[in-house]
Amino acid sequence: MKQLDYFFNPKSVAIVGASHKTGKIGYAILANFLGAGFERKIYPVNPDTMPILGLDVYKSVLNINDDLDLVVVVVPAALVPDVLKECVKKKIEAIIIISAGFSETGEEGKKLETKCKRIIEGIYTRILGPNCIGIYDPYTHVDTLFLSRERCGRPKEGNIAFISQSGAVGSTILDWLKEEDVGISKFISYGNAMDIDDCDLLEYLGDDDKTKVITFYLEGIEASGQKFMRIAKKVTKKKPIIVLKSGRTEKGLKAVLSHTGSLGGSHRIYSAAFKQTGIIEANSWEELFDFARGFSTQPLPKGNRIAIITDGGGFGVLATDEADRQGLQLPEPSEKIKKEISGVMPAYAVLHNPIDLTGDANANRYKVVIESCLKSNEFDGVIAITLFQVPTLEKEVVDEIIKLHKKYDKPLIACAAGGKFTQELSRKLNEGGIPVFSTPERSVKTMAALIKYREWLNKQ
Amino acid sequence: MKQLDYFFNPKSVAIVGASHKTGKIGYAILANFLGAGFERKIYPVNPDTMPILGLDVYKSVLNINDDLDLVVVVVPAALVPDVLKECVKKKIEAIIIISAGFSETGEEGKKLETKCKRIIEGIYTRILGPNCIGIYDPYTHVDTLFLSRERCGRPKEGNIAFISQSGAVGSTILDWLKEEDVGISKFISYGNAMDIDDCDLLEYLGDDDKTKVITFYLEGIEASGQKFMRIAKKVTKKKPIIVLKSGRTEKGLKAVLSHTGSLGGSHRIYSAAFKQTGIIEANSWEELFDFARGFSTQPLPKGNRIAIITDGGGFGVLATDEADRQGLQLPEPSEKIKKEISGVMPAYAVLHNPIDLTGDANANRYKVVIESCLKSNEFDGVIAITLFQVPTLEKEVVDEIIKLHKKYDKPLIACAAGGKFTQELSRKLNEGGIPVFSTPERSVKTMAALIKYREWLNKQ
Repeated sequence: MKQLDYFFNPKSVAIVGASHKTGKIGYAILANFLGAGFERKIYPVNPDTMPILGLDVYKSVLNINDDLDLVVVVVPAALVPDVLKECVKKKIEAIIIISAGFSETGEEGKKLETKCKRIIEGIYTRILGPNCIGIYDPYTHVDTLFLSRERCGRPKEGNIAFISQSGAVGSTILDWLKEEDVGISKFISYGNAMDIDDCDLLEYLGDDDKTKVITFYLEGIEASGQKFMRIAKKVTKKKPIIVLKSGRTEKGLKAVLSHTGSLGGSHRIYSAAFKQTGIIEANSWEELFDFARGFSTQPLPKGNRIAIITDGGGFGVLATDEADRQGLQLPEPSEKIKKEISGVMPAYAVLHNPIDLTGDANANRYKVVIESCLKSNEFDGVIAITLFQVPTLEKEVVDEIIKLHKKYDKPLIACAAGGKFTQELSRKLNEGGIPVFSTPERSVKTMAALIKYREWLNKQ
Repeated sequence: MKQLDYFFNPKSVAIVGASHKTGKIGYAILANFLGAGFERKIYPVNPDTMPILGLDVYKSVLNINDDLDLVVVVVPAALVPDVLKECVKKKIEAIIIISAGFSETGEEGKKLETKCKRIIEGIYTRILGPNCIGIYDPYTHVDTLFLSRERCGRPKEGNIAFISQSGAVGSTILDWLKEEDVGISKFISYGNAMDIDDCDLLEYLGDDDKTKVITFYLEGIEASGQKFMRIAKKVTKKKPIIVLKSGRTEKGLKAVLSHTGSLGGSHRIYSAAFKQTGIIEANSWEELFDFARGFSTQPLPKGNRIAIITDGGGFGVLATDEADRQGLQLPEPSEKIKKEISGVMPAYAVLHNPIDLTGDANANRYKVVIESCLKSNEFDGVIAITLFQVPTLEKEVVDEIIKLHKKYDKPLIACAAGGKFTQELSRKLNEGGIPVFSTPERSVKTMAALIKYREWLNKQ
């Protein structure tokens, strides 16, 4: 068991600062642990030992007659050093400090943070935070988020890890992931990174079996640049890391400084570092998770030759534009493929790439054409644009595409947009392991991310 | 009454090729007219005069003993010339040819199209199409789309006109607009533009009282470039035109040629023409309607000084990055504003722009800060990032923001993302006239589009 495991899979948790009052953070965290179905032991700690939510309350962690794997701290900043000293006495391995009021507030806070840091210097105790929303793990139900489930949904189990320097960005995206039915392996908000920093988290997630792809909202690197690059390079050989770096413009950088106080450094330096270490850079949080969904569900393409298959010529053109910008190849289908698919195509159709199945496409036409491309060695991946508004297109097209995707070891990404009918079929595709995006550009960019990562691996 | 009015507001309609068989296009169109609540006269035309859906059927338009304002033609391409001749005899003003099989299919089709064109040369009859899905007008319930309402929703009444060269792109977006509850004034798919072309439509919509902003999915200009520029320049002085041009890369252009056969011309030429005529260019269909929603609901800003107000620092940074890329100014708030808002801000908050209301923001804090910015002469518009996951933020914030937006004549654009709770509040904001976008980048780009259009008007 690695030490950071205590954060994600503790056998027992104490919440120091657990509160009797609804609306307080210390109440919300306790309630969320209980509501999430966390089945290990939970010990609320508060000077007032009246029970909370039916649980016995302890004056201090030292009064708890049990081993504690994880302590969550939500008391006011000034009280944190004393709590830490008690934790050290109790030989706690893992502490999350949710409380704000440290280095992010100025000189006084910085001193307080240094004081806390000294308390654990040279010993085994590790601290996440302060000034963070902590951890959400859908597998073990660790949930230190002080946000109600009504306002902020929790995503299901999955294989995407999500690290966010910012708590607000993190919780907003978690809520959105729940709504989009995208699963995650672990969520970590690490705040001021007093002890555990970006490098520790990347290294840990690099070895985490439940994590297939790592997403990262980053304002500024906390560890040294050299260390970050060394670890990132090690991890990207094992699994993809996608980063959304904010503060990319001069003004944005100034805004970062006033937000987290992270040392920025020009974006050009960051971009160069990302490229050298194989980190994939996203341009918005939408891209961050578009790419993650691609890596989460698709095999890597062996090359960059893509077939675009569409029932709407216009969407095919938009996809082609983006493919050209991304440097993807769209080879013309060979005579062999043309022959294979000629039986299902209308007589007047001229076959190019994008392959336009035209506005009277049906499920069988999709099936034959997609299969022909997937099984050939002319294409490394397929983008299937399925505009479900087309009246001849049977709902079953979705099952056919899912079957083909399972049969062949090539990436397949879909594009569809529209109302209820489209959303229902898109959900089915997603559940069947095929990510669906609402614009051709998003589908193509995601395929390009898979290709770029494969090219990076080939160069290692 | 202008002649194109007959297309959108006919007193009587004949559908030539109305079919007795469910599933046929000629049946679907008739059913849609009836289902849409079109309350004028409808005359199905078919050699088989058995009633359809309870309506009397006529052998030819010549057998209809009534004035006809609009004729919709859905017979096979080869039969179209004869139908047109009868229409001319009947002195029809407006004809929509839905049928495909014309110039888009090659030489033979081109000849057929020329033959049709000759029939109406020099007379008052105007034709939309062929090879199109025609018109949807939510005000008059003209609906020639042969797509069922189950698969393809119809948006409500609004002030955004939408022209689409491609039928599939058009119907997909209409379906999405319905789902997003965005209203339109008119939808027009004009296909091969045998007679009525892009210029005719722009000119008409430029004078249309119901239309406040024109959106346009364009693969290639059908009229001469000079004419297009002259008309575009005239219209953009009256209202904004936003264009999504596909075939922007070399490969994309080739794909356009094989799709519609429109003469492309390099994108650089198009972009220059758009700039010279004040047309706003969108980079994806999402942007096309993001911008349209901005113009549809917001007053134009007087300058480019924007306040970003946020309860999540990270989203503020992302917005700042985009604002910098778009050339927007984010002035620091003056001492006056700082004093006005100091009472509601936490003591530790350092006031910059973005103004970070921090993670314990409430409705009153939003109210005071937004109002202070709107009423000052330091800012020309406000971007309000409202992450509703924040536990202290009351639902009422939405009503406060809507009230302020009505009180001051400045653009206000919101940003929020998340699950059910967020979606409910976002819908309220949208209904209250404030567009909400899921990423800070989209909100900022939309504000930038408003500013660019205002700058264009100022130069005229």
